Amino acid sequence: MRTVIHLISGDETEQETALAIAENLLADESGSIDGVAVVAQSEGIEALTAGGDHEEQVRSLLDDDVSFSGCSNTLDAMGLDEADLVDGVETVPEGAVEVTRLQDEGYAYLRP
Amino acid sequence: MRTVIHLISGDETEQETALAIAENLLADESGSIDGVAVVAQSEGIEALTAGGDHEEQVRSLLDDDVSFSGCSNTLDAMGLDEADLVDGVETVPEGAVEVTRLQDEGYAYLRP
Amino acid sequence: MRTVIHLISGDETEQETALAIAENLLADESGSIDGVAVVAQSEGIEALTAGGDHEEQVRSLLDDDVSFSGCSNTLDAMGLDEADLVDGVETVPEGAVEVTRLQDEGYAYLRP
Repeated sequence: MRTVIHLISGDETEQETALAIAENLLADESGSIDGVAVVAQSEGIEALTAGGDHEEQVRSLLDDDVSFSGCSNTLDAMGLDEADLVDGVETVPEGAVEVTRLQDEGYAYLRP
Repeated sequence: MRTVIHLISGDETEQETALAIAENLLADESGSIDGVAVVAQSEGIEALTAGGDHEEQVRSLLDDDVSFSGCSNTLDAMGLDEADLVDGVETVPEGAVEVTRLQDEGYAYLRP
Repeated sequence: MRTVIHLISGDETEQETALAIAENLLADESGSIDGVAVVAQSEGIEALTAGGDHEEQVRSLLDDDVSFSGCSNTLDAMGLDEADLVDGVETVPEGAVEVTRLQDEGYAYLRP
């Protein structure tokens, strides 16, 4: 089973929960989780900025093969680009399309 | 691929994000999005009221074949009816059942 | 069709909406809803505590065969255990894994 976490909120608690859930999915002892993706857009993308509060945690999750995608439409609207995100976070044209695509591939959806 | 957006929050930012995402899905250049539905219930239904802040945007999305459904249980609880919603927004008996039905038909789910 | 409701928020309105939606799914007159599960984690688990504001409503939903699961990782982090939850609420090792598993079984996902 694979899971996509939609990181779309500017709420600090919801952002922390999103990253904690990614860790907990990786740590699952049943071995039933084969992949975890995080797609960030809107205010949720703030959690993935280089130099931000969550950089170390995001790097650690990337090392553990969690994939991170940031929405280019959001970056454009905020005057940011891929270089402003933690190294290893990829970009996709539109986060909502990416989340749709992943569910279409069979990923379960979580919105913390 | 088709996507249902669950408009359930009274939070203004989340409502704005929901409608912006509908626009972004329509604008997707990959051509992979075949349909977008918005199902509103609970405080989220406020975003679809006639004369409300989002009426023009909702009308424009309706013109672009986004479907909008409002939850009749919510309308009843608020003392409203279909006439209080933007022209073209349909009603369904219960929003949660409609969102379940759409996912059962293969729609991906997004909750901004 | 079956539906899993993800009770993950500490927001009182969102918690009330989650439980109201469970009731509305049960009351659906189309008869299309065959099962409702509520999975609680993070601050959402507060809605399922014994002696809490929602105990009576949770008991009533349990009587109507809604299943309730609380996340053990969350309970551990809060210094709680299964005995602190309303009688009949079960625990699962990790809520996010349970929500993934239910979607994998075909449940639709709702996040109030």
